[in-house]
Amino acid sequence: MNELSPDIEFLHSALCEESCLNSLSDFHLWFKKQQEKTHVKIEMIPFAELKNWKFDSKTTNLKHYSGQFFSVEGIRINTNRGIKTTWDQPIINQPEIGYLGIISKKINGILHFLMQAKIEPGNLNYVQLSPTLQATKSNYTQVHKGRVPLYLEYFNGKSNAKIKILSDQLQSEQGARFLKKRNRNIIIEVKNDIPVYDNFFWLTLGQIKDLLKYDNLVNMDTRTVISGISFIDNFIEPDTSFLSEELQRKKIPQKQKDFLLSAVDTKNSKNTFDDILSWLANLKFKYELEVQRIPLNDVKEWIKTYYDIHHIQKKYFSVIAANIEIGNREVFGWTQPLIKSAQEGIIAFIIKKINGVYHFLTQAKTEAGNFDIVELAPTVQCLTGNYRADENEYDVPFLDIVLNINKEQILYKTMQSEEGGRFYKEQNLNMIIELKENDVLHLPENYKWLTLNQLLIFIKFNNYLNIQARSLISAINFRNYE
Amino acid sequence: MNELSPDIEFLHSALCEESCLNSLSDFHLWFKKQQEKTHVKIEMIPFAELKNWKFDSKTTNLKHYSGQFFSVEGIRINTNRGIKTTWDQPIINQPEIGYLGIISKKINGILHFLMQAKIEPGNLNYVQLSPTLQATKSNYTQVHKGRVPLYLEYFNGKSNAKIKILSDQLQSEQGARFLKKRNRNIIIEVKNDIPVYDNFFWLTLGQIKDLLKYDNLVNMDTRTVISGISFIDNFIEPDTSFLSEELQRKKIPQKQKDFLLSAVDTKNSKNTFDDILSWLANLKFKYELEVQRIPLNDVKEWIKTYYDIHHIQKKYFSVIAANIEIGNREVFGWTQPLIKSAQEGIIAFIIKKINGVYHFLTQAKTEAGNFDIVELAPTVQCLTGNYRADENEYDVPFLDIVLNINKEQILYKTMQSEEGGRFYKEQNLNMIIELKENDVLHLPENYKWLTLNQLLIFIKFNNYLNIQARSLISAINFRNYE
Repeated sequence: MNELSPDIEFLHSALCEESCLNSLSDFHLWFKKQQEKTHVKIEMIPFAELKNWKFDSKTTNLKHYSGQFFSVEGIRINTNRGIKTTWDQPIINQPEIGYLGIISKKINGILHFLMQAKIEPGNLNYVQLSPTLQATKSNYTQVHKGRVPLYLEYFNGKSNAKIKILSDQLQSEQGARFLKKRNRNIIIEVKNDIPVYDNFFWLTLGQIKDLLKYDNLVNMDTRTVISGISFIDNFIEPDTSFLSEELQRKKIPQKQKDFLLSAVDTKNSKNTFDDILSWLANLKFKYELEVQRIPLNDVKEWIKTYYDIHHIQKKYFSVIAANIEIGNREVFGWTQPLIKSAQEGIIAFIIKKINGVYHFLTQAKTEAGNFDIVELAPTVQCLTGNYRADENEYDVPFLDIVLNINKEQILYKTMQSEEGGRFYKEQNLNMIIELKENDVLHLPENYKWLTLNQLLIFIKFNNYLNIQARSLISAINFRNYE
Repeated sequence: MNELSPDIEFLHSALCEESCLNSLSDFHLWFKKQQEKTHVKIEMIPFAELKNWKFDSKTTNLKHYSGQFFSVEGIRINTNRGIKTTWDQPIINQPEIGYLGIISKKINGILHFLMQAKIEPGNLNYVQLSPTLQATKSNYTQVHKGRVPLYLEYFNGKSNAKIKILSDQLQSEQGARFLKKRNRNIIIEVKNDIPVYDNFFWLTLGQIKDLLKYDNLVNMDTRTVISGISFIDNFIEPDTSFLSEELQRKKIPQKQKDFLLSAVDTKNSKNTFDDILSWLANLKFKYELEVQRIPLNDVKEWIKTYYDIHHIQKKYFSVIAANIEIGNREVFGWTQPLIKSAQEGIIAFIIKKINGVYHFLTQAKTEAGNFDIVELAPTVQCLTGNYRADENEYDVPFLDIVLNINKEQILYKTMQSEEGGRFYKEQNLNMIIELKENDVLHLPENYKWLTLNQLLIFIKFNNYLNIQARSLISAINFRNYE
């Protein structure tokens, strides 16, 4: 039969905020030191000064000489959904599946995660908390002839250490910016002792979740990996007795108990899985999304200058080029294109108790780069331009509720960054707000109430939840709300 | 809370072989009559004689004047999997999602399915048993200005009848022949009385499954729709008590009991869902499949003549053109391209009891048109050419076991057709064979043992099981093996 399941280990780690090994104040001292010793210099340059990158003479796309890493290309969208049914846009094409991998290890009986203080050119604060391994295929097959990424051997089977896979999923990235990009989100448990290099630090899951209350500290890659953690192993045989014991044993505030119960409850959902799957089948059936790859120069309503590629109304985002110097002891220098958002965004889940269990108001959202027409998204996901009165292209349902909610109904509110390797200082307001049980909402056809348990099971089956929904789910702190 | 679940209704219908309404001998009489009154005339014609179809002057692809229905295009494949890592081939591109819909209705307490005796040009026997509604978007949006398909109104919300959706999935078609084609496989229950037209007939699920023991009677579309039926509703709360009662009440042979238990068992699987999902993530991560659309004329190693497009070694399949006359009272005539297979194929599941429960040896298979690199396929799936000694391109694992198995270990063996609207008289040998519990197989990395319950849950989540695997699963007859 099956090996012992990782669910209890994950739960213990999630409920452990003070590691025997490192306290959170240890962490903050260490992290501050990592930031201080970091040298970062980033300047915008004209495209012509990019080294090893060029606009391809045939396709006009912006690509690396090696043909690896990523390219900026054009797409033309035709859809029968929404008000704007056809448009062109630049998009990042990165067909490789990369690793977002976290090494975990049981230390004094509690699962700890080996986190990295990683510098990325586009990061706000330069250094953010990253997974142990964050590598594109070009990285780990060494197209760039750089160093082998640290800890790669634990993920690709080249280490002799005893390793157990705890979580392993292929998940999408931003569908509005990437063409069908996916990463392998993987958490492994190493049974042996392993070296801990200078910019790495052991934290419990509870500690990482605590750090998510700070702005722009935990990077997007960490958030997507930990969003895949669920607390029931074999979801078709949920044994939640260990949870009840745990809740009795520890003093846990009511709201955190409620979240935990919503994560494992399988009896009180408003909609069955069959309901939800039928709802998705109907939307995918009804809405068409035709994405045609076109030369970057053919993208209509976008303007290419020496310094950027931007929308004629300066909306959405622009493609820029940067000269980058980064390092602490060793300094690395390179040039690369980056994506710069025209404005901040907001992502928010509205949640509510139904049948005594937290339900999340989930949106089936179409984005150009989606793997399969629609993905499950937060209740609200938009650029801030969309709610400035005179710039609206369309109404954003429930946005007014999110913006006007009473302070005591806000369970979570921070700024969180997009991936700093591609996006230049891009951040979104992340919110979770709770409605009262007797608040009644009228739902458009593309909204449905899902329990946290249902969302976590959809995450397991890959490509159902978009990265924004996963980011918010990663922030759910079972231990410590203020 | 949720409405009453359809699982028990499906089970009752599956265990009911003699409907109060229609006996199987009634059916055979009716079906014979349908065949006899059918007028079918099909002749091969040169491409130049196709009406409303042309080779596009720009793309050289074979398409309908309307731009609708489907087109025959070229693709170029690059993969790092297998011995042959690059090839060109023609492929059918039909981006529309069509309906494969069955109307069901409770008659004397038992769910009956409204089946259609449908003529398709490529069908062996011309008439096969089809779903109530089988329609491409071009059909039901009436691009061809023909008649509205019968019963469409029950599926598209235009009828006032009381309707409940029992099963609703988007499922793939043949990945070697279609580019990412999917259909909406849907079963609805109608509470009102509805008209039954001449070529329609009510059958229980048990009766349909009985008919699957005949060669080429139940068409592919019916098989894929009924493969999606599971006997536990909310799979995360499997309540199997009704099943035990049912099994005690009725006299059911042991093997059928074993299949039923394997369909609902959630405790005795060799691999957990997390194991299986991690196995799939690893294969999708490791293997690349780049499919580039190219002009049909650029497809290397294929020859276009006046009458067909075939492979230089006459392998695989050819594209042909046909003039078709079909009808009983009214006669319809049209021309269209068809795909003609170069040889028959074989698909087979090897099954075995592990921990007392049937496990199916499942293959993670890469096909050019797959939605997502690999899909779950039967143990063996190949063209017969692959096992004629001197024509092998590659070894087919487990094929020797399937071909040399003792007769008493064969649980299922029939010829079944591919979809007659696209494929010309194409059939595959369908087999399910049972190994002894102490038979040990060495599994290559892309094979894994899954229970029937696990396969049925993967079907629910769409695009996991390929059409060949679903065809075999549809044939599992819980009532009546010989």
